[in-house]
Amino acid sequence: MMKIDKRDFPVSKVRRYLEPGPIVLISSRWQGRTNIMTLGWHTVLEFSPSLVGLMISGGNHSFEMIRNSRECVINLPTTALTDTVVRIGNTSGAEIDKFSEFGLTPEPAQEVGAPMIGECHASFKCRLHEDALVDRYNFFIFEVVKAHVAAGTEHPETLHYTGEGIFMVSGRIIDRRSLFLPDRLI
Amino acid sequence: MMKIDKRDFPVSKVRRYLEPGPIVLISSRWQGRTNIMTLGWHTVLEFSPSLVGLMISGGNHSFEMIRNSRECVINLPTTALTDTVVRIGNTSGAEIDKFSEFGLTPEPAQEVGAPMIGECHASFKCRLHEDALVDRYNFFIFEVVKAHVAAGTEHPETLHYTGEGIFMVSGRIIDRRSLFLPDRLI
Repeated sequence: MMKIDKRDFPVSKVRRYLEPGPIVLISSRWQGRTNIMTLGWHTVLEFSPSLVGLMISGGNHSFEMIRNSRECVINLPTTALTDTVVRIGNTSGAEIDKFSEFGLTPEPAQEVGAPMIGECHASFKCRLHEDALVDRYNFFIFEVVKAHVAAGTEHPETLHYTGEGIFMVSGRIIDRRSLFLPDRLI
Repeated sequence: MMKIDKRDFPVSKVRRYLEPGPIVLISSRWQGRTNIMTLGWHTVLEFSPSLVGLMISGGNHSFEMIRNSRECVINLPTTALTDTVVRIGNTSGAEIDKFSEFGLTPEPAQEVGAPMIGECHASFKCRLHEDALVDRYNFFIFEVVKAHVAAGTEHPETLHYTGEGIFMVSGRIIDRRSLFLPDRLI
């Protein structure tokens, strides 16, 4: 696995990578320890401020780390990391250090305490924006405060989980701009 | 376009179709009128009860219809409906009847007043479960009370929106069951 060079990317446009519904890796830090979890239950909520909703199940070791630190990084893995993604989802940060166990590079993120994952295609640094539904639904609303995306490939091969150990991989790109009203081409 | 025969499907398993992040068509009914909108900002929130969160922008004609009726149907279109999906997203139910304009079949749904769309691969009938974040974020939490899915193809070719008129189409399926802990194969 290789670290991927990234460039700044407008936070108001992270929907390009999140709206298609990929599995993401959520990295966190609390009291000097880091962790990573896999997550497929997320949605974009607003362009500006750039808001994203994450359903983080309370059974995850990351849950209290993220609730306490009120920060995380949403990292976008590609199929180069498929087996690592599955292994991250089948282990617990209570028992292992996932960065070292899986040979991933924690990169310091200025804006938040949580590290970025160097081997991912994109990293979106997040601060907690709204916790009204955390107690009842484990639903966190984060603001993406800074985004970094790999240069080059605009449509990386992402993983989309269907449950029961089966993933769908992103496929071909189709362009329907000609059917859009100009003011809806956002 | 053809109507698609569907079978009952367990509501606790709708994540199979929604977690991968497809564009969906939301049908509604209020005061005798029906409407359809496209939506890409959604997330699964719970297996049982089967909860799904939808961000329905207030600018949509469907917004008040769904808020008032407290019901909707989440319909899953495939690439057979690509151009129709785009046209639905670029017109307003304030001006046209989308079912008749686009040759779609409204099928009565016993459990809710909103009609299902006959030409879609799956239909998930929903009742509003939680409206605490509707005023601030236009975020509705629905319970799927009944699900119907086409027989045959388990992995239909779905549309995933990246913005600016560009869609990603679902691609190949990969199986990583062998790397899962037995109790995580849900």
